[in-house]
Amino acid sequence: MKDDQPPRPPRPSRRGFLKAGGAAVAAGASLGAGLAAPQSALAKASTRSTDPQMAVEPFYGLHQGGIVTPQQSHTYVAALDLTTDKRDDVIALLRAWTDAAARLTQGNTAAALPTGDAGDNKSAPDSGDVLGLGPNALTITFGFGAGLFTKDGKDRYGLAARRPAALVDLPRFNGDQLIPEKTGGDLFIQACANDPQVAFHAVRQLTRMVYGNAAMRWGQAGFLSGPRGQTPRNLMGFKDGTNNPSIAKPQLMNEFVWAGASADAPWMEGGTYTVVRRIRITLEHWDNMELGFQEQVFGRHKYSGAPIGKKNEFDAVDLKEEDKDGNPVIPENSHVRLSNQASNKGAQILRRSYSYNDGTNFYIERWPPWRQETEYDAGLIFIAHQSDPRAGFIPINDRLAKFDMMNQFTTHVGSAIFAVPPGAKPGSYIGAGLFET
Amino acid sequence: MKDDQPPRPPRPSRRGFLKAGGAAVAAGASLGAGLAAPQSALAKASTRSTDPQMAVEPFYGLHQGGIVTPQQSHTYVAALDLTTDKRDDVIALLRAWTDAAARLTQGNTAAALPTGDAGDNKSAPDSGDVLGLGPNALTITFGFGAGLFTKDGKDRYGLAARRPAALVDLPRFNGDQLIPEKTGGDLFIQACANDPQVAFHAVRQLTRMVYGNAAMRWGQAGFLSGPRGQTPRNLMGFKDGTNNPSIAKPQLMNEFVWAGASADAPWMEGGTYTVVRRIRITLEHWDNMELGFQEQVFGRHKYSGAPIGKKNEFDAVDLKEEDKDGNPVIPENSHVRLSNQASNKGAQILRRSYSYNDGTNFYIERWPPWRQETEYDAGLIFIAHQSDPRAGFIPINDRLAKFDMMNQFTTHVGSAIFAVPPGAKPGSYIGAGLFET
Repeated sequence: MKDDQPPRPPRPSRRGFLKAGGAAVAAGASLGAGLAAPQSALAKASTRSTDPQMAVEPFYGLHQGGIVTPQQSHTYVAALDLTTDKRDDVIALLRAWTDAAARLTQGNTAAALPTGDAGDNKSAPDSGDVLGLGPNALTITFGFGAGLFTKDGKDRYGLAARRPAALVDLPRFNGDQLIPEKTGGDLFIQACANDPQVAFHAVRQLTRMVYGNAAMRWGQAGFLSGPRGQTPRNLMGFKDGTNNPSIAKPQLMNEFVWAGASADAPWMEGGTYTVVRRIRITLEHWDNMELGFQEQVFGRHKYSGAPIGKKNEFDAVDLKEEDKDGNPVIPENSHVRLSNQASNKGAQILRRSYSYNDGTNFYIERWPPWRQETEYDAGLIFIAHQSDPRAGFIPINDRLAKFDMMNQFTTHVGSAIFAVPPGAKPGSYIGAGLFET
Repeated sequence: MKDDQPPRPPRPSRRGFLKAGGAAVAAGASLGAGLAAPQSALAKASTRSTDPQMAVEPFYGLHQGGIVTPQQSHTYVAALDLTTDKRDDVIALLRAWTDAAARLTQGNTAAALPTGDAGDNKSAPDSGDVLGLGPNALTITFGFGAGLFTKDGKDRYGLAARRPAALVDLPRFNGDQLIPEKTGGDLFIQACANDPQVAFHAVRQLTRMVYGNAAMRWGQAGFLSGPRGQTPRNLMGFKDGTNNPSIAKPQLMNEFVWAGASADAPWMEGGTYTVVRRIRITLEHWDNMELGFQEQVFGRHKYSGAPIGKKNEFDAVDLKEEDKDGNPVIPENSHVRLSNQASNKGAQILRRSYSYNDGTNFYIERWPPWRQETEYDAGLIFIAHQSDPRAGFIPINDRLAKFDMMNQFTTHVGSAIFAVPPGAKPGSYIGAGLFET
């Protein structure tokens, strides 16, 4: 990394550092003290503190974290492309990521910090920007894109035959306007935490430690604001996630989320398949729509979250109900009807999406009055987990992309799909089953 | 706004809404109940709840909020350009903004929501995406750019003679790489809150209500993560704000932050001048620098935050201290030395900055090895308040732009300066003194 450095001014005397040695040691000690709570929490499998900053999620286990974990308030998701052509480099990368992720999720630095003057002449193994912050329920989830198995027709790592059939290339959906630099990727990192800097910090350390073997393809911050214990509202103002299969019901998770031991990819048992879509929403236009029209688009009442015609958020969605003129109460092209399990051969996916807000950009409108102006670059980082996308996201989104009234306000600009392997045991690493069985 | 709507599918039967009337009324009632806490809090001047979601900041007062208010964890800042040529439209805009901001900061919707079916055929006066969330200590701060006074040489609103001398155009600083669509603006909104959606929501409602008279120029989300009660660390991993003048000392605020009653702009008494800079940081390069070098750049120890050679964060910065070889302990071109009050004729500014994180972009490096690659679009939304930028930001940043070692890692890509008028009295509006005295 040495030749990576910009021109340096003359190095001043080292005297100042020597003088400060005591302070640096003292700082090291107090950092340790600050981490005492999360470390002792490790003795238990998981600690969901009432203080969201001090909550700790386990890293090792049957499944990776961040899938059926109660959703944290922030995320940073990223995809990297592998630049090495050596299988051993990929294994070393995954081992390093696993070890660092285990540390980070427990509220530790990515690697131990040197104490005293020992580290002055090296770059620190951790950027240090979350020192003093709690673990914030950080979870780190890794996934594999198609490019790990074959890229440009090449079997770079001897893994081509092990690509799961369920890790399909997503078809082009109606209306897709995908931008290559926000799409795809060989490797996936999802960091979720109750603090934006803690989530970003994790991806930043992990990405840095593999420089030379993998390069950033895209990164994206997201957030989720909701009253505690209630379904959060997305930027369109509607509750989002009401009809999710319950993470409190393991049998539903086994049926819809966790991959089984398929003949083609036994190593994926206990993993899942994750679809990520960056969906821009034209909030300026949405906000000008009549309230009744917005509710017809969703198929739900805005303030209560109830299905149209019902009173309470969790009242069942009755797709057969008709008014006295014989019209469906929940409109034919409403989002709720088209995405409902009953419209999709019983399929369900576990949505675990975040809003995003990347400032403003200049846009040329796709709809009358064809305005050209500065608008929000904001919307939804749609994230969905499922046991098989061929039964889950793909048919559901195919129907939505064709018929959903909401499409007038949404544009899919980024897309990716990943095989997310099962969790690791201590001493092993994420993806070991792919490389070693 | 009617001709602003995209093509609409046929409107389904209204029957569903009639059926749901009861639910809508019930929802309206429960929304009211949810807001009971902040409304009763209004009786007191300000309520800094121990629950950051329930904290309420006053809107009306001698000064606008969000300047000496203890810093909330999130912001959304935006600049708009005026598109009307009528003075009365500008006054009406400021009246509408003032009334809505007073409501929003107290945890209410931008305007009252209709109950029952009454609002079905209208667009709602509030996007509804923060219903159920607390006030989150929301503050809303308005400012005026040079374009309110003259634009393209035209005195659009009869205000040219009232432009404060202190509202100077910022000079071009060494290294500036400003992007026009992230720079300038006639009007400024800063929303700060303990929740990202609450901050963005405020700007979104305010911007929407003036459509036709003002258009978005740029918008930017930011966040601040810090252990409670301690100086937060920026993305470079260093504590940021240690040497700020204390907001707990009114005499310091009067001296350095609040504008006095100058002859040219008596209406600015109790206001301030605010500089906003979007500063991208090449975090990838920074993270590869030796720890000792990073500390020389800042002039502080990274982990303790102490000035180099000292033990504790709040130890005084001694610029005269030399080592036994006669070299300054705090390097000549360190950030702390160059920005210190003693290096700037006693000037101080009140920094109230946020980090930003807008994903990734493709960049072409300015430094060897001249890499071209996808990097973070992340850094600092620098925000500084001062009584006169001619004594504050301008000379300080002129020195930094020329000599600061940190410039190797930072690029100023956006810039703006605003006159932020004093607070409003109930019944009046922000900026009344400019138009009516």
